[in-house]
Amino acid sequence: MSIPAPLDPSERLLCGPGPTNVTPAVLEAMQLPMLGHLDPDFHDLILDLVALARHAYRASEAALVLPLQATGTSGMETGLVNLLEPGDVAIVGVSGFFGKRIAEIARLTGAEVVEVEAQLGEHVPNERLLEALDANPRARLLAVVHAETSTGARHPLAELGAAVRDRDVLLMADCVTSLGGVELEFDGWDVDFAYSCTQKCLGAPPGMSPVAVSERAMERVRSRTTPVPFSFDLLRLEDYWIKRPIVYHHTCPILHIYALHAALRGALVEGLEERWARHAEAGAYLQNAIRARGMELLAEPDYQLAPLTAVCVPEGVDGKTVQTRLLREHGIEIGGGLGPGAPPIWRIGLMGDNASIVTADRVLAALDAVLADEPVLSGVG
Amino acid sequence: MSIPAPLDPSERLLCGPGPTNVTPAVLEAMQLPMLGHLDPDFHDLILDLVALARHAYRASEAALVLPLQATGTSGMETGLVNLLEPGDVAIVGVSGFFGKRIAEIARLTGAEVVEVEAQLGEHVPNERLLEALDANPRARLLAVVHAETSTGARHPLAELGAAVRDRDVLLMADCVTSLGGVELEFDGWDVDFAYSCTQKCLGAPPGMSPVAVSERAMERVRSRTTPVPFSFDLLRLEDYWIKRPIVYHHTCPILHIYALHAALRGALVEGLEERWARHAEAGAYLQNAIRARGMELLAEPDYQLAPLTAVCVPEGVDGKTVQTRLLREHGIEIGGGLGPGAPPIWRIGLMGDNASIVTADRVLAALDAVLADEPVLSGVG
Repeated sequence: MSIPAPLDPSERLLCGPGPTNVTPAVLEAMQLPMLGHLDPDFHDLILDLVALARHAYRASEAALVLPLQATGTSGMETGLVNLLEPGDVAIVGVSGFFGKRIAEIARLTGAEVVEVEAQLGEHVPNERLLEALDANPRARLLAVVHAETSTGARHPLAELGAAVRDRDVLLMADCVTSLGGVELEFDGWDVDFAYSCTQKCLGAPPGMSPVAVSERAMERVRSRTTPVPFSFDLLRLEDYWIKRPIVYHHTCPILHIYALHAALRGALVEGLEERWARHAEAGAYLQNAIRARGMELLAEPDYQLAPLTAVCVPEGVDGKTVQTRLLREHGIEIGGGLGPGAPPIWRIGLMGDNASIVTADRVLAALDAVLADEPVLSGVG
Repeated sequence: MSIPAPLDPSERLLCGPGPTNVTPAVLEAMQLPMLGHLDPDFHDLILDLVALARHAYRASEAALVLPLQATGTSGMETGLVNLLEPGDVAIVGVSGFFGKRIAEIARLTGAEVVEVEAQLGEHVPNERLLEALDANPRARLLAVVHAETSTGARHPLAELGAAVRDRDVLLMADCVTSLGGVELEFDGWDVDFAYSCTQKCLGAPPGMSPVAVSERAMERVRSRTTPVPFSFDLLRLEDYWIKRPIVYHHTCPILHIYALHAALRGALVEGLEERWARHAEAGAYLQNAIRARGMELLAEPDYQLAPLTAVCVPEGVDGKTVQTRLLREHGIEIGGGLGPGAPPIWRIGLMGDNASIVTADRVLAALDAVLADEPVLSGVG
């Protein structure tokens, strides 16, 4: 075959739904000397990393926290295949692409899935989830999306956790777009399984999925009678990551572990609450500026996420063309709608280092420039 | 919590069973500007990467080649969960840890597994695998380990492929320690599913598993009637990696993709056969030097792998202490035996850039220095 040229990717300001630009200190960490995954020094480093991830989740020592080599979706699947067995009932709140995906993967486990739906951009009201629980007393799992990356809507997870605390059901939450950028209290909110990713509010490259698992969720895992795929088996993964001497399971992604260590350490140095506040400020600034331009947001105002803003494409504007021009003329990536049923939206992410007024202003200026000479196809602009 | 210090790992010469030291050009590629995974420029890059991986496997255009975000073990599991359904019969050649693992994961799929065993360090003779096929005419999968990382033994895969070519059984091969370092002809040897990793002979960091799947294996996948875990589903993964416009499946590990692109491109610039020859020369040099010192190798001489040499720890020597001293006094990592049933061995890897006489000499000099003053516990030294 002919030899392709060396890679020469262009600079991008990554303001889509993720990945975001990698924090410089995180990139630097990936250039440090690589230890072997069975090196005793590396084992110490992993335990530090677990402690850092535990802190980011606000999870207690009783919870199992693991930085899995996985995509966010594989983190989701890890939870579902460990917590559900064939014939179990799972209740899933669905008002976007990722709620729908939870339901889809839950069905693959052989579970019976009850979807409680709401409109895109809305959250699924907790009362309706509780009604579904009342109607399905056998339900073993209740799953919601804390931060719906496809719409920018936040689920009132604290209130849901308090409401189901005394029920015999496990609470699972998709925290892919919230961990490190939005208030999240794994223990305080009585969550049983949470999963996230590294490439959004944490500012690391994509490649890992930090998960947190409560003690009662692990009891459920220990009492299952049907097998779990080897790669996703939380009991084996606990042996590999936590127990000493280590039990070989796989070779973990060492440079991604360095990256996540640096990213989480950076979040801790900044302060978790300060980091949430920075994301909140940048998101609110962008959202106000978008509304001031006469454009509408997809999410309910009271449940609008800060790191991810879904903007309704103004009528008559070709959203995809605007996205392409932002990329090609301004080097700025923003996202479009996700999946075949998505309405015409732009998804703008201000995550990690990009959660700043400066970045918001760069996106707004580029959007203004493109919209100023973009033909409007019909009457409204 | 108290803030841990920034990472400060020591320099290591990584000469265990993997990971190996990352090639400098590969590390440099990981510092290039990060594109989003839905960026049109990134899609071109992925197709280049697939072409490079296809070349490394010597796979034709008819084969599906995917650089999965997965460990080597997850690459193994991807093959097994796609190619086996509950009740299928799988025949697995087992003469080491990874053959045993194939059998274990195959059982998790609900398949009936026939293990054909040989001693550690030997290969499972093809005649015995063919006898097992004759005795199990319903067998749908025959799996062997091309390069058994736990013992350093090579399976005669070319001959096996020729022998089963006309049978209605799929041939799967673990190529974790062979891809890029040992002769391997996916198409020429009629392999149906091969998986590997990035951190051994390719000289990239751990984090991905390039796999190759034959057309007839994909026909099998398309005709299954039971579901596959979402993250491992080859039909969904094919849609994500290959088809355009892209169908969203997950966010792929962008910097690892840069790394693998640079690693495979480097292998192509060097020349695949030249690279195999370099590994062969370095391995043979090390093995001759070990034998010249009166030590024995675990693998059968005619089936000894070049990249991985398992050395029998001389009687009376504490193998683990020697490993620790090599690490602490010389900054050199070598491996020990893998798993509870392993004999006392050292596993020395000369892979990627470390497949050189210079590296072999460094390891030998350090080993000589440590053994010179290491107390011998009993008579033999």
